[in-house]
Amino acid sequence: MAPRSIALLGCTGSVGVAVLDVVAAHPDRFRVVAMAASGSNPSLLLEQIRLFRPKAVALWSVEAAERLRERLAGEPVEVLAGLTGVENIAAWDGVDMTVSAIVGAAGLRPTLAALRAGKDVALANKECLVMAGRFFMEEARRCGVRVIPVDSEHSAIFQVLFQGQRDQEEVSLHVDPSARLILTASGGPFRGFDAQRLTGVTLAQALNHPNWSMGRKITIDSATCMNKGLEVIEAHHLFGVDPGRIEVVIHPESIVHSMVAWPDGSVLAQLGVPDMRTPIAVALAWPERIAAPVPALDLVRVGTLRFFGPPDPAAFPCLELAYAALRRGGGAPAILNGANEVAVHAFLDRRIGFMEIPSLIEWTLEQADDAGEPGSVSDILEVDHWARGRADEWIVRYGKGPEVA
Amino acid sequence: MAPRSIALLGCTGSVGVAVLDVVAAHPDRFRVVAMAASGSNPSLLLEQIRLFRPKAVALWSVEAAERLRERLAGEPVEVLAGLTGVENIAAWDGVDMTVSAIVGAAGLRPTLAALRAGKDVALANKECLVMAGRFFMEEARRCGVRVIPVDSEHSAIFQVLFQGQRDQEEVSLHVDPSARLILTASGGPFRGFDAQRLTGVTLAQALNHPNWSMGRKITIDSATCMNKGLEVIEAHHLFGVDPGRIEVVIHPESIVHSMVAWPDGSVLAQLGVPDMRTPIAVALAWPERIAAPVPALDLVRVGTLRFFGPPDPAAFPCLELAYAALRRGGGAPAILNGANEVAVHAFLDRRIGFMEIPSLIEWTLEQADDAGEPGSVSDILEVDHWARGRADEWIVRYGKGPEVA
Repeated sequence: MAPRSIALLGCTGSVGVAVLDVVAAHPDRFRVVAMAASGSNPSLLLEQIRLFRPKAVALWSVEAAERLRERLAGEPVEVLAGLTGVENIAAWDGVDMTVSAIVGAAGLRPTLAALRAGKDVALANKECLVMAGRFFMEEARRCGVRVIPVDSEHSAIFQVLFQGQRDQEEVSLHVDPSARLILTASGGPFRGFDAQRLTGVTLAQALNHPNWSMGRKITIDSATCMNKGLEVIEAHHLFGVDPGRIEVVIHPESIVHSMVAWPDGSVLAQLGVPDMRTPIAVALAWPERIAAPVPALDLVRVGTLRFFGPPDPAAFPCLELAYAALRRGGGAPAILNGANEVAVHAFLDRRIGFMEIPSLIEWTLEQADDAGEPGSVSDILEVDHWARGRADEWIVRYGKGPEVA
Repeated sequence: MAPRSIALLGCTGSVGVAVLDVVAAHPDRFRVVAMAASGSNPSLLLEQIRLFRPKAVALWSVEAAERLRERLAGEPVEVLAGLTGVENIAAWDGVDMTVSAIVGAAGLRPTLAALRAGKDVALANKECLVMAGRFFMEEARRCGVRVIPVDSEHSAIFQVLFQGQRDQEEVSLHVDPSARLILTASGGPFRGFDAQRLTGVTLAQALNHPNWSMGRKITIDSATCMNKGLEVIEAHHLFGVDPGRIEVVIHPESIVHSMVAWPDGSVLAQLGVPDMRTPIAVALAWPERIAAPVPALDLVRVGTLRFFGPPDPAAFPCLELAYAALRRGGGAPAILNGANEVAVHAFLDRRIGFMEIPSLIEWTLEQADDAGEPGSVSDILEVDHWARGRADEWIVRYGKGPEVA
């Protein structure tokens, strides 16, 4: 059997690196033929190109692409640049599956390009679903391609729902309406803190996630619990489940990655050590199972699953903000997401304090009227642009800055 | 949609009663048209007949059947008797699914009759698979019927493997050979006891199972861990997994009912409160999900899954005896099962002590030569008969009786 051809968007990020780890363990099964990156880590990218020998590479940064083109002069690899370049990588001829691991709203258009070119999508980008879930899933159905989630929580739900699925052609991931989804959350580094204590936390503390090694944006989202809120929105769109049937349970050990519960009393769960290479291997090989360079979960050695508890909405209002945006619908999830991106970057730049993140998002959501339902992805990108503008405005008008230097 | 017609074998046992509970909750979905029982609980049976109004009932006991016939004279219910009567119930015309909940070797022939009549089988009887697994599963495939396990452990594995299965016609339950099955075991009332302490345990102690309310035979099997050994053999036949890829983990809370692990690091598990009505509802409605009269598992309230540990082969040799019989193959599992039934009944009759159960079984297995591979179910029933004779002989020759009155 010919190896599965893969386009990898976001190859130098933490998910991208993990994807390449899995691919490297199965050279007979997978071949990365096209790669895209931001351009912020040229030395790692060059190393990856030497190792995986893709036919084409695209960089968001036109300058970085130009420099890379010079470095690779005479070598058999095409170097593309900008959004169009990344879209071309996503839809590259002969690719069977596009792995979308670009962080943020920037991932939306290239991932749509992959769908429209008929590529199956392994989806690690959250924003495709958070900002444009309805359009995205409709487009996937229309194009008859599979969307397989890579996020550990959605992968868990996907696995328990579809492990026995033999029908390769099946595209809809909708679960029967009697099921409840239970997303687990580590609770992040500040689990147990109250709102008072959270106002004083530092950037370094927020970046110190207890279980997962991830990018900075998602690590902060994990500390505020917005990450879980975004995942609730994703789960709603992926699996067609109403917000009222999606619950969040705090499970600090990150061994149970999520669950599905039915009215017959049965709960199906996916467990494993917290390592992204497991959900990546699941997505790349589905419906087959392959070995991943991940230690097996040894429950006897683990001994105890110590804690399952409720989230604390007073200390972590971002989760409720996300539920509210999902229920409000229309452009609200895109506003939530855009405002959150601005807030997190401002926190990373030490321009606002930790508890200012939810305040900024709440205010931005309040500024929007719900006059027009977005009718297209372009409308959503406009809403996103509007939200970022208002979020910036909040920082100028109300931002107090980090309480702790 | 017309209700699903069900034949229920073993209606007055603990599983049978739970089946009727689920059926009673869904009068629009299910209709019990035929029932069979041992005859040992005539008043409960009469109550069930009045409530569920089956077209036919069979009793193993010919005398009990005669008495029931007199009680029901003039009512529109046929009363049958003996093995043939129970086989007729299993294969009753118009039945869609036969629930096999007869305890012991007596369940084998009626369940085969159901398969041969093209009935889907919800299987709670262990002996069909333990004694005659190869023949039984071959017959199911030949007849193109589904076998859906009702045992909580096998139901757990079935659910995680086949939740996404859409293809109703699929009969094979075989899992891909890279998977490992992890059966959980409560450890029974004597978890943590050593062999010395176990020699002195009483019948009352052995009958006091911490989590599950079950019949006396299976409760003793649970105390010796033979129950888990029999389940390993069942799992081997149901799912086509080598003994070396089936593990047992002690989990006293009985919340995780079993698991499947893949080489990508993923473990799928089924959880729920320990209540047989959940796996029964799963089997009756598969592939749909229905409500069962069972409290939902609330992991937040549970808080902690306290313990996962290794079994203790020195104190509970029955588990290893079962693995050895499975590896030896041929008639060995039937010998193990027959000898165990004799041993457990002798223990229930206070004729032998607790730790004599494994001694009796081990000796009986040693007496057998492996000259002839059983070529049919009749051969297996002969092996069973032989094993019971030798087991009785052990009691006479070596039995010391219970150390404690």
